[in-house]
Amino acid sequence: MDPRIRDHAETIVEHSVSLEAGDNVVIQLPPEAADLATALYELCGDIGANPVWIAYSDRAARAHLLAADDFETPQHQLAFYEQTDAFIIARGGSNVTETSDVPPEANAAHRRAMKPVQTERLSKRWCLTQFPTSGHAQLAGMSTEAYENFVWDAVSLDWDEQQAFQAQMVEILDPADEVRITAGEETDVTMSVAGNQTINDNGEKNLPGGEVFTAPVKHSVNGTVYFDMPLYRYGREIEDVRVRFEDGKVVSHSAGRNEELLTGILDTDDGSRFLGELGIGMNRAIDQFTYNMLFDEKMGDTVHMAVGAAYPETVGEENELNESAEHVDMIVDMSGDSTIEVDGEVVQRNGTFVFEDEF
Amino acid sequence: MDPRIRDHAETIVEHSVSLEAGDNVVIQLPPEAADLATALYELCGDIGANPVWIAYSDRAARAHLLAADDFETPQHQLAFYEQTDAFIIARGGSNVTETSDVPPEANAAHRRAMKPVQTERLSKRWCLTQFPTSGHAQLAGMSTEAYENFVWDAVSLDWDEQQAFQAQMVEILDPADEVRITAGEETDVTMSVAGNQTINDNGEKNLPGGEVFTAPVKHSVNGTVYFDMPLYRYGREIEDVRVRFEDGKVVSHSAGRNEELLTGILDTDDGSRFLGELGIGMNRAIDQFTYNMLFDEKMGDTVHMAVGAAYPETVGEENELNESAEHVDMIVDMSGDSTIEVDGEVVQRNGTFVFEDEF
Repeated sequence: MDPRIRDHAETIVEHSVSLEAGDNVVIQLPPEAADLATALYELCGDIGANPVWIAYSDRAARAHLLAADDFETPQHQLAFYEQTDAFIIARGGSNVTETSDVPPEANAAHRRAMKPVQTERLSKRWCLTQFPTSGHAQLAGMSTEAYENFVWDAVSLDWDEQQAFQAQMVEILDPADEVRITAGEETDVTMSVAGNQTINDNGEKNLPGGEVFTAPVKHSVNGTVYFDMPLYRYGREIEDVRVRFEDGKVVSHSAGRNEELLTGILDTDDGSRFLGELGIGMNRAIDQFTYNMLFDEKMGDTVHMAVGAAYPETVGEENELNESAEHVDMIVDMSGDSTIEVDGEVVQRNGTFVFEDEF
Repeated sequence: MDPRIRDHAETIVEHSVSLEAGDNVVIQLPPEAADLATALYELCGDIGANPVWIAYSDRAARAHLLAADDFETPQHQLAFYEQTDAFIIARGGSNVTETSDVPPEANAAHRRAMKPVQTERLSKRWCLTQFPTSGHAQLAGMSTEAYENFVWDAVSLDWDEQQAFQAQMVEILDPADEVRITAGEETDVTMSVAGNQTINDNGEKNLPGGEVFTAPVKHSVNGTVYFDMPLYRYGREIEDVRVRFEDGKVVSHSAGRNEELLTGILDTDDGSRFLGELGIGMNRAIDQFTYNMLFDEKMGDTVHMAVGAAYPETVGEENELNESAEHVDMIVDMSGDSTIEVDGEVVQRNGTFVFEDEF
């Protein structure tokens, strides 16, 4: 086994989900990630935690989604996660377009049925990470070995140092009211974050981490956004997304590619046309775009917004928690011709923060 | 995907566990069996059942067992299986000796901790089957392709015809009191099966099926048995097992190889020195010994006895159900110089049944 897999497992177990003796753990990994499963099982044994590996196979998921007429919430999974203390999930897979021929309605219906399970999982200590596979290497346009280096470098950052860097942005955003983001000629959007909490993501719930994020106040978002970085969802690439918000809701949208998939996402449920997250990518160790949101949204000089579910820990008690079976992040490149304004003050210009020397 | 994998999945889903709409299903397969998982997920979708794939990896299990000091019953798994309707489990794996360096005490302690989970699973509709992998092919001394043929032939028997053949033996054994088995110079054992039920295994709980089995009355077993067919357990081969029973209990034992592993099994708990099962192999389509109990115990002209847990459906209400975290089958070759006597009448001689022409 590559020793970096053990290092990765240690970071997950010790830093990200802080496993303790007696913890009931669910580890959801693709079959390709058997080495990571082995490393995690060993650490669970050391600690005295109880691991179960749930295999996620894109091929099996596709077969199920294509064959089924409708979906119901699986009560055995719900009971399982209710008794779970920590949930570790890694992406992987040999072919990232494996589910590309699943109708968007089937994805949306399945997400709706699974929502109680997802809510339960998100109420636990959890970590989403990546196992480097040929499929994701290909998506990134990289050799498998270069992609392995990329992933294992990214997850083994000095997370204390990164946390200190990001804390400067948390200090600005956490007490703020209005945030305005402009980029290029098409993006100009304002929203309130008043009363909501800003989280310093230093590699716990997401590994790699490297963003600060909060939730917009549900009905406060107004303006237009051109998401100029593509995203992969349900095995397909959605490109050139343009969205207009009125009082928080997406009232018009378009995409240069796979627009019907975007429409399906937005029409999933009552919450899927509202923003659940505003995030600012601050991890400059992620130095290339790999079409994988777990990494892309953390890139320095980017901002992302997610339609769908808000993270409960970001929403203040006075504010409404946006609920949805979806949570789809979309990215705006902020490296040039852009600003983030907080309560009227520019805090980032062309990718440089106000607390950096070059500002 | 090999079309025989879909056929195998159909037999499991339609014949073995009779899945229905709304069933919550757990599918425990090794990572190597992704194709079978895909076929099962597709059929679950067709039927409207809710599948979850639990990955069983020998490497991960070994890592956990070696690292842990002790084990507790995982409450999340217990809750999971309580809400499960059907449990499908397939053996497979690339190296059947993967857990060969796990101390027997660790296996036994883990089995004890998992016993409530195992009891819960066995209370559901369940099926144990085989996915043909290189590891099991090697164990059988066969090429992988020849082993695939062997497995997929064995699971696609005409189960109605097999059931009719076996029903003749059920008719003899079900109402019986005393059973005596003799083989060669060393095996001569008697036991009561009075009040217990004999099950006609036609490929439901085990696929392939092909045996009739019941439970000995717990304290009725007396005599000696030489199990002349080897068995694999916890990644190791146990050979030439000799056992003496007094009033149901194993009072002395030896093995020509890995005797300490056998001792560990027998010392697992209060029930692990008592027989939980008497079975008669009647599947003549299984024409070679492959060191895999799922197949070997079904071979025509064999008898097997299992120390440990009895199957509740075989034990009459008047009789004590032997409970244990273990259930280890051991086989006696009955093809020559042997008899099965039921209530004083010889019903099988040298591998031929009383209801067969050649008797």
